[in-house]
Amino acid sequence: MKRESVFARVEELRKQITRAKLDGYIVFDPKNVYYFTGFKDISNATLGLIIPAEGELDLWTYPLSYTLAKEEAKNCVVNNVESGEKLYQKVAEKIGGMGFTAIGFDKMSADEYLMLSKTIPKVKLNQKSDFVLGLRGVKSREEINLIKEAAKLADIGAECGIEVVKSGMREYEVAAEIEYEMRRNGSEGVAFETLVASGPRSALPHGISTSRIIKKGELVVMDLGATYQGYRSDITRTLIVGQPSDKQKKIFEIVLKAQEIAFQKIRSGISGRDVDAVCREFIKKSGYGDNFIHGLGHGVGLDVHDPPRLSPSSKDVLFAGNVVTDEPGIYIEGYGGVRIEDMVLVKEEGAQMLTKAKKPVLA
Amino acid sequence: MKRESVFARVEELRKQITRAKLDGYIVFDPKNVYYFTGFKDISNATLGLIIPAEGELDLWTYPLSYTLAKEEAKNCVVNNVESGEKLYQKVAEKIGGMGFTAIGFDKMSADEYLMLSKTIPKVKLNQKSDFVLGLRGVKSREEINLIKEAAKLADIGAECGIEVVKSGMREYEVAAEIEYEMRRNGSEGVAFETLVASGPRSALPHGISTSRIIKKGELVVMDLGATYQGYRSDITRTLIVGQPSDKQKKIFEIVLKAQEIAFQKIRSGISGRDVDAVCREFIKKSGYGDNFIHGLGHGVGLDVHDPPRLSPSSKDVLFAGNVVTDEPGIYIEGYGGVRIEDMVLVKEEGAQMLTKAKKPVLA
Repeated sequence: MKRESVFARVEELRKQITRAKLDGYIVFDPKNVYYFTGFKDISNATLGLIIPAEGELDLWTYPLSYTLAKEEAKNCVVNNVESGEKLYQKVAEKIGGMGFTAIGFDKMSADEYLMLSKTIPKVKLNQKSDFVLGLRGVKSREEINLIKEAAKLADIGAECGIEVVKSGMREYEVAAEIEYEMRRNGSEGVAFETLVASGPRSALPHGISTSRIIKKGELVVMDLGATYQGYRSDITRTLIVGQPSDKQKKIFEIVLKAQEIAFQKIRSGISGRDVDAVCREFIKKSGYGDNFIHGLGHGVGLDVHDPPRLSPSSKDVLFAGNVVTDEPGIYIEGYGGVRIEDMVLVKEEGAQMLTKAKKPVLA
Repeated sequence: MKRESVFARVEELRKQITRAKLDGYIVFDPKNVYYFTGFKDISNATLGLIIPAEGELDLWTYPLSYTLAKEEAKNCVVNNVESGEKLYQKVAEKIGGMGFTAIGFDKMSADEYLMLSKTIPKVKLNQKSDFVLGLRGVKSREEINLIKEAAKLADIGAECGIEVVKSGMREYEVAAEIEYEMRRNGSEGVAFETLVASGPRSALPHGISTSRIIKKGELVVMDLGATYQGYRSDITRTLIVGQPSDKQKKIFEIVLKAQEIAFQKIRSGISGRDVDAVCREFIKKSGYGDNFIHGLGHGVGLDVHDPPRLSPSSKDVLFAGNVVTDEPGIYIEGYGGVRIEDMVLVKEEGAQMLTKAKKPVLA
């Protein structure tokens, strides 16, 4: 992450802090700490970053992360919290000493919220996750390049899956090959738990990979992603292993066409609901309206579910610089399912596919 | 997860609910939902489980998880929340209709806490994560068997790392081999981001795996784990690639000995602080007291950081059925570090090593 990127993001956040008449903002989500400082800790570390409306930023870390934070955090004072001390206590004490009356924060647990409210009762705490999410939803050129690298790794994973999957293999064996191929090409790890769901399990949109043995003539959904410098990718391919039935082929063709229809609709200024609607309408007309049981897509970035959303209930409007998935699916309980997913960069005029792996119907 | 296991756990939780004079308990952590129902969703799904002091359990899921939940959740009514509806709203409405005055919960976000408080203002919400953590800390025979499987996979990963690591490789290439070997042997995925940290980076306890090329004569710390049916493992091996210096060998020997000293101390009834202290004292006497910058260990189970803790500030006492790590380390900033870690099952008399990978000093 470039030094000037994190500076610019802090300035953008500060505009919102000032507009909302807050004295500052606390960042607890490690991904947001990375976004605003360039320091990428491993997941689950407890970090706290104080961004005052003006003046120096303060990052609080435990000893485990301190050295790396000092090296990587580019725009803040790094403070070490001794083991046994509470990081939230330190953050609260610091805030308490700054004369603040109202601050925003990205997220915290109920426990932490109650503790902070008790320690600094005079400071009003406002959950303002939208401040950060709004910024994170629109990607910079630098971020798009990182996402493109992650997308390339997803393509490598998907093409590997397409190559290796065959009847007789266990789902997790296919997942192993996919993940290995992405990892040795530079992925920092999976973007989410790799899903290889076969036969009736392919009708489970969140079906993970089990020890089930893939059989001839079955649908296999492979949903996978890589991570590159913290940025994630997300792609799905569905194949039929061996002889496909007419019904399988028909569903596959409908989903493929639905995905293309949605893609043609994506551009800056359109609502996430409208893109979803045109695709949903096509699937409905094809006779499978009740079988498309999730939203069409979601943003991808530091999280695999970033803003904006493309769904019937979404209130988001797409902007140039959004990176979203286009992933219609048809799921028939007890029978199987098809989902085809690509990552799409929203542009002023139209859109660009970021994932490019082939889409064969047959393994 | 056996049907009788989840029933027994709910009964144990209910004893605590009743003792605390609560009307029920809400579970939001997907790992706890798995623990109490047998339904294992992929991470990040939003779930809500209501466990009343008496009567039927209610599980709330979104459509993406509904089918699998119905299949796997063994002891509750499964309710579908339509996309666009708020799961927390549904849970709040259900609770509101039950005439409750006080409930416990495992965890939720500040946002969700404020929303629930507003929707059901007459119901007192009490964070009682310790109810579940207390249960989860002491593993049943069934759980120990699952953890042993996860530990075996970690051994496979560690031995693979020991086998393949050599100068000229990138850290992430070593990680790729380790993860592949675990995955194709049945791991559901890494227990946490695999760490292969070489040279000066080995002094970073949370150093992940980068594109850094490993050089001759360098320390390489490999910290890794697998997942089996939701249960995790955690192991660390440190090697010197090529010619070791006297100082490197000395540090390695101190850490190895420190780990053994701690292991000899572990048994039911001893405090986590005392086990940590005996190990810390040895490292201090060896001249590296300031370089052991984290606690000695932590529980492992559905989370890679489960209760209990072994550290200078821990208030936990070990019990038979705890599974903990024994992982002293010495970290010298700018030079390098050594950490050796195994998983240990606490028994009435003494303890048992669950991870068994070899511990060579040289690659």
